[in-house]
Amino acid sequence: MELLNDEFYMQLALNLAGGASGQTGVNPVVGCVVVKDGRIVGMGAHLKRGEGHAEVLALNMAGEQAKGATAYVTLEPCSHHGKTPPCCDRLIFEGVARVVVASIDPNPVVAGSGIRRLRDAGIQVEVGVLEAQAVQLNEAFNKFIVTGLPFVTLKTALSLDGRIATRTGHSRWITGAESREAVHTLRHRHNGIMVGAGTVLADDPELTTRLGVPALHPTRIIVDSKLRVPLEARILNEAAPTIVLTTEQANEDKAGLLREKGAEVWRCGTGERVDLTQAMSKLGGHGIGSILLEGGGVLNGAMLEAGLVDKLMLFYAPILVGGTGAPSAFEYTGPEEMSAALRLKRVTMQAFGDDWCVTGYPEVNSSGNVPAAADLKEE
Amino acid sequence: MELLNDEFYMQLALNLAGGASGQTGVNPVVGCVVVKDGRIVGMGAHLKRGEGHAEVLALNMAGEQAKGATAYVTLEPCSHHGKTPPCCDRLIFEGVARVVVASIDPNPVVAGSGIRRLRDAGIQVEVGVLEAQAVQLNEAFNKFIVTGLPFVTLKTALSLDGRIATRTGHSRWITGAESREAVHTLRHRHNGIMVGAGTVLADDPELTTRLGVPALHPTRIIVDSKLRVPLEARILNEAAPTIVLTTEQANEDKAGLLREKGAEVWRCGTGERVDLTQAMSKLGGHGIGSILLEGGGVLNGAMLEAGLVDKLMLFYAPILVGGTGAPSAFEYTGPEEMSAALRLKRVTMQAFGDDWCVTGYPEVNSSGNVPAAADLKEE
Repeated sequence: MELLNDEFYMQLALNLAGGASGQTGVNPVVGCVVVKDGRIVGMGAHLKRGEGHAEVLALNMAGEQAKGATAYVTLEPCSHHGKTPPCCDRLIFEGVARVVVASIDPNPVVAGSGIRRLRDAGIQVEVGVLEAQAVQLNEAFNKFIVTGLPFVTLKTALSLDGRIATRTGHSRWITGAESREAVHTLRHRHNGIMVGAGTVLADDPELTTRLGVPALHPTRIIVDSKLRVPLEARILNEAAPTIVLTTEQANEDKAGLLREKGAEVWRCGTGERVDLTQAMSKLGGHGIGSILLEGGGVLNGAMLEAGLVDKLMLFYAPILVGGTGAPSAFEYTGPEEMSAALRLKRVTMQAFGDDWCVTGYPEVNSSGNVPAAADLKEE
Repeated sequence: MELLNDEFYMQLALNLAGGASGQTGVNPVVGCVVVKDGRIVGMGAHLKRGEGHAEVLALNMAGEQAKGATAYVTLEPCSHHGKTPPCCDRLIFEGVARVVVASIDPNPVVAGSGIRRLRDAGIQVEVGVLEAQAVQLNEAFNKFIVTGLPFVTLKTALSLDGRIATRTGHSRWITGAESREAVHTLRHRHNGIMVGAGTVLADDPELTTRLGVPALHPTRIIVDSKLRVPLEARILNEAAPTIVLTTEQANEDKAGLLREKGAEVWRCGTGERVDLTQAMSKLGGHGIGSILLEGGGVLNGAMLEAGLVDKLMLFYAPILVGGTGAPSAFEYTGPEEMSAALRLKRVTMQAFGDDWCVTGYPEVNSSGNVPAAADLKEE
């Protein structure tokens, strides 16, 4: 049984925010609950970039009841004029008495100034309630807003012996229906989805989001140094935007034909292979704040080696494939010594049907630091 | 809170049995609790092959209080003269009123006859209380007593990408201290431990059980087709018996030298490689009812392909090794189609420090069938 306390209302606000995960573009997801005299009088979540913030929607619902109320907000209210006026001003204007915040906004133009502004206006502010959950909910935003680079989640389906195909290259299907439904849910929650040209040539995937309910399609990104992607590939259809990443060396005629099909073609680097670091930077600048990487072993390995992977979600089927030398989920050089292997932290497990998803974060990659609420406790 | 009922006493009996796991040789582990007028009056577990059975030890403790009591036994009481007289006779002699049994003894000379004998004597018998737990506890015995073959548990430590070493062959350590402690506990619980000659040459392991408390060492088994194991290998020391499995082709002089060092040398098959099926049969005949297989990828793969692996315990470290082509935990040909991959059933997960152990059973391998208690319910 849940107890009625600050955590209860904050959990509700986090649930509101979580529901909108994937539909706010590069913006964070935020939830807000306004409580007055023992009852909820307003609820809201930020639903779309450029539209109302969670606090504003919840305060609109509360109307005059906001005066003297407590507002629970999952992310520090903004203090700056962005696409909408600062939420702090609105909270002050409505006469809210107390604001409970889960996590600090790492956005350098906020980063504690929202809290200070509220306190300066005489509002009692509490920070850090369910902070860890709130930080994780916006892990992609937290990296993007500080670095300008997309947060990359590497997802792969593999056997217990680390294979993604048999020795003959056969790979459909490794995991079960439940895992594939989870993967489509991940697609809905990311701004971009990335594969290598090899995957396009082998499987001709559409890379759209297919679920029992309508969902959002991520921008499709193909890493294609030699522009090998066929013009009739399904990934070039109109279901979603497509970006082809290639190099300065790539054939301009083929690039032109791809553009005619509606794709964007970006040249990243002058070498043989796409400069992945440069590509990530360009994608971030283009408003892609999160990427689901569904590469084969070589692209996965290259992204890992470049330190561009922030999170891994490994869907293990309960099978052994054997097939000495069969394609592995991570084809890269790797270290000489076991102690230098890439270590994951915060590892968790979740069952999907007969499969198990292992989620973890590379230890070496710090994906942006969120200012800790502890630094903003009331003196 | 545990409720006082049949399951409560049976769970206690199972705990008694589980405590003796590893010290009864090819015999099953069995626990017994005798209850009279609301209090436990006797407890016992089978502790060593050739010595008292659980029922006998518990009835000894109960003395005259056994009359009219209820006996909880994890395995059907024996009805035959083995190394000790039948437990059924003793239960009848003591005037026990009710016997609650968890699982049927699959031993063909018992297999329900114990239950019938008790019922014929007017004792009320209940069968199937916590049956699944009891069957699992004796999974090795259940296979061995029916097939004469050892139950083989394949254990390996590996990275999340299925590697057991880096590209340079470096492998110490993959998993952490907690996992290694679990592996030594597994050694205590198995009659034999098996590796390939390659592992002996690479690591010179002693393959004894090293824990914070004294423990039992399994018989060491080396698969060594060419008798490459060096005479000074630590596995040939006197800590435990050692069996070297080889072929008819192997050099007799080297075999003689190994025997002088105290090892047994068994020739299994006339081919290039040890005939593993023949080897398992010989080991079973020699009183090895359970084997912990700690092979490298090639031996693991060969045992899997031969259908000789009954259970897998995969200790995953939260690391990625990469190293395209680096040694994998399962080096074997494998199927062409993904749907033909070796599937595991009854998969469970357990954390050991930062590592996760995945336990499962190959779907294709039926490790002896235990008669179901449902077939012996009172009419």
